[in-house]
Amino acid sequence: MSDIGVDGWANPLRSPADRRLPRIAGPSGLVIFGVTGDLSRKKLMPAVYDLANRGLLPPGFSLIGFARREWEHQDFAQIVHDSVREHARTPFRKEVWRQLSEGMRFVPGDFGDDEAFKKLRETVDELDVTRGTSGNYAFYLSVPPKFFPQVVRQLKKHGLSDAPEGSWRRAVIEKPFGHDLASAKELNQVVHEVFPPDQVFRIDHYLGKETVQNILALRFANQMFEPIWNRSFVDHVQITMAEDIGIGGRAGYYDGIGSARDVIQNHLLQLLALTAMEEPSAFNAESLVTEKLKVLKAATLPADLGRHTVRGQYSAGSQGGEQVIGYLDEDGIDPASKTDTYAAIKLGIDNRRWAGVPFYLRTGKRLGRRVTEIAVVLQRAPHSPFDSTATEELGQNAIVIRVQPDEGVTVRFGSKVPGTSMEIRDVTMDFAYGESFTEESPEAYERLILDVLLGDANLFPRTEEVEESWKILDPIEEYWQKHGRLAHYPAGSWGPVEADQMLAQDGRSWRRP
Amino acid sequence: MSDIGVDGWANPLRSPADRRLPRIAGPSGLVIFGVTGDLSRKKLMPAVYDLANRGLLPPGFSLIGFARREWEHQDFAQIVHDSVREHARTPFRKEVWRQLSEGMRFVPGDFGDDEAFKKLRETVDELDVTRGTSGNYAFYLSVPPKFFPQVVRQLKKHGLSDAPEGSWRRAVIEKPFGHDLASAKELNQVVHEVFPPDQVFRIDHYLGKETVQNILALRFANQMFEPIWNRSFVDHVQITMAEDIGIGGRAGYYDGIGSARDVIQNHLLQLLALTAMEEPSAFNAESLVTEKLKVLKAATLPADLGRHTVRGQYSAGSQGGEQVIGYLDEDGIDPASKTDTYAAIKLGIDNRRWAGVPFYLRTGKRLGRRVTEIAVVLQRAPHSPFDSTATEELGQNAIVIRVQPDEGVTVRFGSKVPGTSMEIRDVTMDFAYGESFTEESPEAYERLILDVLLGDANLFPRTEEVEESWKILDPIEEYWQKHGRLAHYPAGSWGPVEADQMLAQDGRSWRRP
Repeated sequence: MSDIGVDGWANPLRSPADRRLPRIAGPSGLVIFGVTGDLSRKKLMPAVYDLANRGLLPPGFSLIGFARREWEHQDFAQIVHDSVREHARTPFRKEVWRQLSEGMRFVPGDFGDDEAFKKLRETVDELDVTRGTSGNYAFYLSVPPKFFPQVVRQLKKHGLSDAPEGSWRRAVIEKPFGHDLASAKELNQVVHEVFPPDQVFRIDHYLGKETVQNILALRFANQMFEPIWNRSFVDHVQITMAEDIGIGGRAGYYDGIGSARDVIQNHLLQLLALTAMEEPSAFNAESLVTEKLKVLKAATLPADLGRHTVRGQYSAGSQGGEQVIGYLDEDGIDPASKTDTYAAIKLGIDNRRWAGVPFYLRTGKRLGRRVTEIAVVLQRAPHSPFDSTATEELGQNAIVIRVQPDEGVTVRFGSKVPGTSMEIRDVTMDFAYGESFTEESPEAYERLILDVLLGDANLFPRTEEVEESWKILDPIEEYWQKHGRLAHYPAGSWGPVEADQMLAQDGRSWRRP
Repeated sequence: MSDIGVDGWANPLRSPADRRLPRIAGPSGLVIFGVTGDLSRKKLMPAVYDLANRGLLPPGFSLIGFARREWEHQDFAQIVHDSVREHARTPFRKEVWRQLSEGMRFVPGDFGDDEAFKKLRETVDELDVTRGTSGNYAFYLSVPPKFFPQVVRQLKKHGLSDAPEGSWRRAVIEKPFGHDLASAKELNQVVHEVFPPDQVFRIDHYLGKETVQNILALRFANQMFEPIWNRSFVDHVQITMAEDIGIGGRAGYYDGIGSARDVIQNHLLQLLALTAMEEPSAFNAESLVTEKLKVLKAATLPADLGRHTVRGQYSAGSQGGEQVIGYLDEDGIDPASKTDTYAAIKLGIDNRRWAGVPFYLRTGKRLGRRVTEIAVVLQRAPHSPFDSTATEELGQNAIVIRVQPDEGVTVRFGSKVPGTSMEIRDVTMDFAYGESFTEESPEAYERLILDVLLGDANLFPRTEEVEESWKILDPIEEYWQKHGRLAHYPAGSWGPVEADQMLAQDGRSWRRP
């Protein structure tokens, strides 16, 4: 572990961490629709417990589950209990659990059931009295998007979306935010009929990750990166989200959607926006969204989409020493499916900072390794006073932000090889979150749920961002459809050879992270 | 270990290291005057063996010792043998030793003895025939400077300094190169009467260190450092050479000379020159000396030397848990000595790149730890979009070149602290020579002796550099003499409090490395 105290300076500004006030949610409650789903059980319930355990929830915090199940309150509490015991990040403490579980309620019913929503309304009112939630509620729609209209209209109909004077009502929704621009607009319209835009929190869980938030800290709290963070010094940027798993149990959702809509439209374009944006005038949602939008609006597609995008699907292969089946043989997948499980695209950003610098984005399932990273690859030094033999093993400098799984930063640069000649070779310098901080990273959902309760929208994409992102992806998807593009790659490889060619024609190559 | 092969790119330019030709010395011999001294025994003899063992010396390489001892050749060979067994870096191999020792000769005599130099001449001629040294000889004057005039004049008188057609004769001298400008000039004049300037190799063993050579590789083979390596981004530079040992057995040499003349005039000003210089037009001695000289000539002293320099002497204290005596109680030191064992100075460099950026240089004996490093400390970010509470534990970014003992590079920057608030704290990112390369670093003397035999003067300070360095130090030494400046510090501390005040008045602080 290394920090300011041990690496060379005695900083007079140093202060004990406890001088900073922790961000603690005020009186509030959370209503989860779709409480029986995987996301709820594996992420949301544990995150609520972890927040409570860290003392970041108010004493009377309340959790209401809504689902088509014949459960009593205590059945629901038991479900939450089991999920917490299995998935929570922090140790189980009885007193925390007892206090939290006293605020748990369950409302049985389906989304068309007025009685159920009436019951929900009563439950909310009851908790305001018994737990002091002060009328502040977030409604987490952990349900397929086709149910959004019905749920939000029911919330409106039963007076649940209208915040009483001095309190708030918020909607939390998960991707997909549509499957193209038109459907996204439709969805946004439905939600905004009921909730004002600043009370709608779209979860892109990538934005809750420490290293993603660290992009901004790295760039703008430091003096050393920003001067070279532009077209004068950057050759290109590679943003990769690679998964080693296949389709898993998501066939129903995934088939027909594909990797570009599932990952590039949201996660990768958000990472792009954070990497490329100008300094926001303040660290708040309004300023951030302004800058991110500028980037998304400045994004341009290559004229020849055939040469500069690749769409692929995995076939059988081997991964981690095991034979794995191809996409078309997965359970629940149409054997004639043309869905992409790999996508790579090239974008430009037409502004003063980035003109001429390509941004390469790629994502895929069944790739060699699970990794998400942003690699800012610098140009070669404009001139070297050394012999060319001295530098022939020297690549380009790069600053790599490792988003997962080994969160941190890697810098690649050239260093003299020990010996009696001047020979220069690439080396790397690492900063690892895990080694540098004793603080453990919270789960993305802890951060994001707390932000919802605090009304801090910094890490949530806005309507306009979602729509601008679809504007980038739609023409590509249309091109792919029209030309029936689909390359294939063996599971466990790093994608189709076409993707390698796509960079090779630009004189570049993908990282093999 | 990480290099280009493992950190993400498959570089098409990669080539096997054996495509590069090793630098191997041609036919030659080395004559050492002062062969009975510590330097010869601990550094020079082992370095010669290590070079031979690495295959970098010619098969007929010859080593002649000259000293006032009644030794036969085999006695000398035995001395070398013992020193190699004790101090060589590489394993002892009989066949290497046998071949090397066959070229060893000893010439007994003192420096005034014409017969001895005649014998040396005969030995050189003999070796040309029996070992094929081709008339190429380097004369290593590992003797106190007061003997330089006598030795070089004897070499001239006996025709040893005159290179036969097509061969070379070189002189190698060790610091001190004078004790002020006048004496340095005198010394240079004497040596240059006999050897042309480009055949005189001044050893500053710091320049033979890998990390010192790496300063140039870092700066000029990369794209990421040079853009911020200037007054627009750098706040100040700290160059430190700290020793934990006391005066040891060097009282006779050290007392009256002191730390500034012993270390700042040569090592630290050379490090300063390499850190601050412009890119040389090529990586050769001529271009390097041109750029280093420009820096030294642009160096300016503060108007008020009293406020911006500190001179100190260690008193008794504790180091590594042991009580140690003060300088005045050391063996062989005049109990009234005013010699400095610590010196800190502030310099400016008046050019476009560095105007207004202070360079702080310090050295000392009996300090907290043995360390040599160059810290380029950047300015704070000009603006931060984050709350001031988010950044209150954030220092300044710094790029630290660790010269010894843990050779490498450390970069200090701010990173988000894991947790649900935006809090930014300093972290470090390290590159360690030892971890990144399988190649072992040669000793500085291996590198430098090989360079002498190859006639490669890149790493040797020239006459003008030595003189310019004295021009910087002389006014400071004069001020100190005139004002009787001498602070004290306990052994094991980080120097006099006056040195801390010297930086505090500029709003800065020394690193505690």
